[in-house]
Amino acid sequence: MIQVTVIQIDNYGPWTVTPNPRRESDLQALQSRLYGDLNLQFGAHKGLVFYTRFDNLIAITNGIDLETHRRIQDSIKNRYPFTISMGIASAETPYEAQKLATEKIQEHGSAQDKYRKEVLDVANDFILEEGYVQLAHIDINNVTKTLTDLESAYDAYLRINEIHLRLIKELKKYGAMVFFIGGDNFMCPCNGMTESDFIAIFGDIKDKTGVQLKAGIGIGKTAEDASNMADIGLELIREGKVEGQVCTLNYKNYNIRRKFNTLCPI
Amino acid sequence: MIQVTVIQIDNYGPWTVTPNPRRESDLQALQSRLYGDLNLQFGAHKGLVFYTRFDNLIAITNGIDLETHRRIQDSIKNRYPFTISMGIASAETPYEAQKLATEKIQEHGSAQDKYRKEVLDVANDFILEEGYVQLAHIDINNVTKTLTDLESAYDAYLRINEIHLRLIKELKKYGAMVFFIGGDNFMCPCNGMTESDFIAIFGDIKDKTGVQLKAGIGIGKTAEDASNMADIGLELIREGKVEGQVCTLNYKNYNIRRKFNTLCPI
Amino acid sequence: MIQVTVIQIDNYGPWTVTPNPRRESDLQALQSRLYGDLNLQFGAHKGLVFYTRFDNLIAITNGIDLETHRRIQDSIKNRYPFTISMGIASAETPYEAQKLATEKIQEHGSAQDKYRKEVLDVANDFILEEGYVQLAHIDINNVTKTLTDLESAYDAYLRINEIHLRLIKELKKYGAMVFFIGGDNFMCPCNGMTESDFIAIFGDIKDKTGVQLKAGIGIGKTAEDASNMADIGLELIREGKVEGQVCTLNYKNYNIRRKFNTLCPI
Amino acid sequence: MIQVTVIQIDNYGPWTVTPNPRRESDLQALQSRLYGDLNLQFGAHKGLVFYTRFDNLIAITNGIDLETHRRIQDSIKNRYPFTISMGIASAETPYEAQKLATEKIQEHGSAQDKYRKEVLDVANDFILEEGYVQLAHIDINNVTKTLTDLESAYDAYLRINEIHLRLIKELKKYGAMVFFIGGDNFMCPCNGMTESDFIAIFGDIKDKTGVQLKAGIGIGKTAEDASNMADIGLELIREGKVEGQVCTLNYKNYNIRRKFNTLCPI
Ligand SMILES: Nc1nc2c(ncn2[C@@H]2O[C@H](COP(=O)(O)OP(=O)(O)OP(=O)(O)O)[C@@H](O)[C@H]2O)c(=O)[nH]1
Ligand SMILES: Nc1nc2c(ncn2[C@@H]2O[C@H](COP(=O)(O)OP(=O)(O)OP(=O)(O)O)[C@@H](O)[C@H]2O)c(=O)[nH]1
Ligand SMILES: Nc1nc2c(ncn2[C@@H]2O[C@H](COP(=O)(O)OP(=O)(O)OP(=O)(O)O)[C@@H](O)[C@H]2O)c(=O)[nH]1
Ligand SMILES: Nc1nc2c(ncn2[C@@H]2O[C@H](COP(=O)(O)OP(=O)(O)OP(=O)(O)O)[C@@H](O)[C@H]2O)c(=O)[nH]1
Ligand SMILES: [Ca+2]
Ligand SMILES: [Ca+2]
Ligand SMILES: [Ca+2]
Ligand SMILES: [Ca+2]
Repeated sequence: MIQVTVIQIDNYGPWTVTPNPRRESDLQALQSRLYGDLNLQFGAHKGLVFYTRFDNLIAITNGIDLETHRRIQDSIKNRYPFTISMGIASAETPYEAQKLATEKIQEHGSAQDKYRKEVLDVANDFILEEGYVQLAHIDINNVTKTLTDLESAYDAYLRINEIHLRLIKELKKYGAMVFFIGGDNFMCPCNGMTESDFIAIFGDIKDKTGVQLKAGIGIGKTAEDASNMADIGLELIREGKVEGQVCTLNYKNYNIRRKFNTLCPI
Repeated sequence: MIQVTVIQIDNYGPWTVTPNPRRESDLQALQSRLYGDLNLQFGAHKGLVFYTRFDNLIAITNGIDLETHRRIQDSIKNRYPFTISMGIASAETPYEAQKLATEKIQEHGSAQDKYRKEVLDVANDFILEEGYVQLAHIDINNVTKTLTDLESAYDAYLRINEIHLRLIKELKKYGAMVFFIGGDNFMCPCNGMTESDFIAIFGDIKDKTGVQLKAGIGIGKTAEDASNMADIGLELIREGKVEGQVCTLNYKNYNIRRKFNTLCPI
Repeated sequence: MIQVTVIQIDNYGPWTVTPNPRRESDLQALQSRLYGDLNLQFGAHKGLVFYTRFDNLIAITNGIDLETHRRIQDSIKNRYPFTISMGIASAETPYEAQKLATEKIQEHGSAQDKYRKEVLDVANDFILEEGYVQLAHIDINNVTKTLTDLESAYDAYLRINEIHLRLIKELKKYGAMVFFIGGDNFMCPCNGMTESDFIAIFGDIKDKTGVQLKAGIGIGKTAEDASNMADIGLELIREGKVEGQVCTLNYKNYNIRRKFNTLCPI
Repeated sequence: MIQVTVIQIDNYGPWTVTPNPRRESDLQALQSRLYGDLNLQFGAHKGLVFYTRFDNLIAITNGIDLETHRRIQDSIKNRYPFTISMGIASAETPYEAQKLATEKIQEHGSAQDKYRKEVLDVANDFILEEGYVQLAHIDINNVTKTLTDLESAYDAYLRINEIHLRLIKELKKYGAMVFFIGGDNFMCPCNGMTESDFIAIFGDIKDKTGVQLKAGIGIGKTAEDASNMADIGLELIREGKVEGQVCTLNYKNYNIRRKFNTLCPI
């Protein structure tokens, strides 16, 4: 079970143009700061937030209770010119969890209903013990030499967007989500998926686009633990310490295994 | 002629994993803050920055001279754990300009060359007088009722990504770029394009996806002036004050035309 | 027992002038952002930070364990061009606690020792259960009409500084600290002090300067709980719901007392 | 003639307690961020802002026109939960300039008048050519070994506050202002003062407190130019390249003098 929080700015569209359209550089500064702050504040409790559409964000929040959500919601109200609503849900797959979480917000009214404010609702019980997060940190091999140093900045961007959309579509079949996190990196909440699922998808993308992907897959009680494990997995692949392009590490076993110096696979 | 600045974090990849992979929520906070700050600092001189890949950003900088670029570059060094390089270029189309600007950075070495630091280079003369910026602010009709309030947050995100990639590919044919700016909005630097180009592209997308796009197109000496005009154009479409889904306003004529209360087209 | 954390930027003086003095507006932006971030990150765990000298900060951290301190220390390293050291201590009075905490940092070397980095040390056991925080939120009566709307901005500032220094000196006799938190407000960690101590001090300041102070005093397990209670106390004074210029509320009893609608004193 | 801008948050007091007192760590994060942003935004035009009371700030803004002020005012409205008012004035001394600037705001109503919003007013003509800024960057000799590494963090803070108040009172006699900028540093706008004025004041403070101060004094067309010169002056004193504890540099002559390698005094 993975816990997902969907965050939505309340009635944001009308605000951006009232009384006149607001300067776009300010809106970009405002939205990016909201995103950064949510990462610091959920991050303080080992959560991880993705910017998604900037006015609708998706966070992995295993281990973070309702009270902490409410405190973050308050903190945004105290520092921003708008308020946010949040829906929280747990499910076997990330896709299913975000769907339930979105519905919890939608039940309370439209994103542009001016009376709907600071919704905070939960689809099902909080999973404080039995849940876990599985995250794949997906990365392109040698993006520096093959894209960044070679192509124009915009063409590199185009390629990253193509890969991203391909990943989104493929991974959705498994109930997984995938977000761009900068550079040539994607973060994929993927509870329930196996290494061979990723190997198959990466093989297919390699055939169709020539781009070779790799992924560290981390498992942990929180998004942070899972993400740290995924990062270490990625480094093991980079250093050639494991075979192949996928390496899974479980936070629970990691210290034991580190002691005995045995590594991937899980 | 449009002036474009390509911004690249120096040797960022290695830094993110030295000595160990850094917490992902911190990296997201760091990257989004860099993006926000660049928008405030270029915005202070009427420029506009797009996050692109977060480690490689693209800005529209007509009217912003070399000295101001250097001051922004210094300010980042003074406040961040890394430095940035910048290439600046002007061209007839945005695509061409970013290409020249990227090449200026690439000439000085690899993005992951640890000795290449704080490049600041210009492909051609600064256009302080004759240049102009044309920006199309593209928006989906009624995204709230058709996507946000209806679909799950992730499915809405998927749809936005599909539209974005379609726009990227279509607009590249015209030498234009298009960036996601949050919600259901895209900003498209498009010097040289006409209203009918957009009408054709939007018609095609409508046919293939069912999604109706609209665009305010703004023309001005700076990104900010163009963007403000584009926003006003968008509002005129929203309020039904112009026919069709595209409305162009030129900052130069705007005050005159506002006086006589005549509006779109340009 | 109150728990205090002293935070020090490592080797900051030399950095500000290497290789050349850095732009002062950048340093101010950098320092204020560090202060803001520490408040968000300690605040996420109900702590409260005071800017003090900006390169040396003092925080009230009851209930915040070593691991959380380490995570905040990491997060700063991940996003700033410098690192921070922290000393943690508990004592009967705030003054004593900060003294022990400072000594813990000093033991590891000079603030400008370039090899001393990211100290994280604890003077005594963490007080997770038996400790408490007592905070007085001190405010000037009617500063708007008597200073802000009347005097020049700088003269108002001068007056606030005078009052502050007076408070610092008086309160130190009781082992209390007092920090300026903006406007006409001071926050005073004051475990062990009584209402009559404050009444005496305020009377004296009234006689000498003509300025009437009031204080909400809050008691709680964490800085946030204490601060919230102090704020409510201040509002009760403002609304004339309690007599006199001091009102103490204890978080533990507050809900009970709210039920019975009895109020100050504690 | 120095140009000063006084900035005031509109109707801030009531907002902080409506509907209930807001979390103090959020208010500190909010206020410090406003301060940082104002420094970035005025800094983009070579201005410099001091936090003063956080809800009332004082900026040195030579060379910054009304339009730029308005754009900064808009940007704050676009990103903060409140608005700001600004008064601008020029005068022979900094003290006089801030006084006139404050009065311009006060004319429009009380700081806590809920209808007074976004005042932007100018006391006298903008000085774009003939004006100049003189800034003294005042610093304590060897604060690290004498205070930071020796005393407790709070006692060091107390000492700094004492020195600050002394400086405020002495310098006011000359029409100068002095602000704490972190560490052991004070920034003092001091148009019209001479080196011997500072030498006399520092001698007196040395006698009374044992603390030896030094000051780089910079003169330039903008706050940034003056501040840079002051910083270089301070380094020259540190390196023993000039005699005594005060060194004045004028931006206008600096490049010439650097060529001939002659240094202080001006
Ligand atoms: N968000 C995030 N981005 C990262 C991380 N590591 C690298 N990046 C980004 O990825 C970009 C490319 O770095 P690398 O993946 O190391 O470069 P590469 O050339 O592809 O090298 P290999 O992956 O080792 O083949 C960097 O500029 C960063 O933007 C990370 O942990 N998190
Ligand atoms: N960056 C940016 N985003 C905006 C702007 N205006 C709206 N948005 C975003 O777009 C989202 C949807 O708002 P609207 O486009 O007003 O909503 P809609 O339902 O599509 O309504 P119509 O466009 O009027 O049909 C908002 O939540 C914002 O995220 C803008 O000027 N800049
Ligand atoms: N940090 C902080 N500052 C506050 C708070 N409440 C008020 N202020 C500041 O104090 C300033 C003055 O507000 P008030 O104290 O409400 O005004 P006043 O005229 O003194 O009114 P009374 O205190 O009711 O007599 C505001 O501009 C704020 O800067 C608070 O809770 N925290
Ligand atoms: N705002 C600001 N603070 C500074 C600057 N330079 C130093 N500081 C602060 O001053 C503190 C003390 O540094 P120094 O003044 O170099 O140390 P010192 O021991 O007094 O050394 P000397 O001044 O050389 O005798 C640092 O921790 C910073 O907080 C500056 O340019 N601007
Ligand atoms: Ca890579
Ligand atoms: Ca829309
Ligand atoms: Ca008050
Ligand atoms: Ca010093």
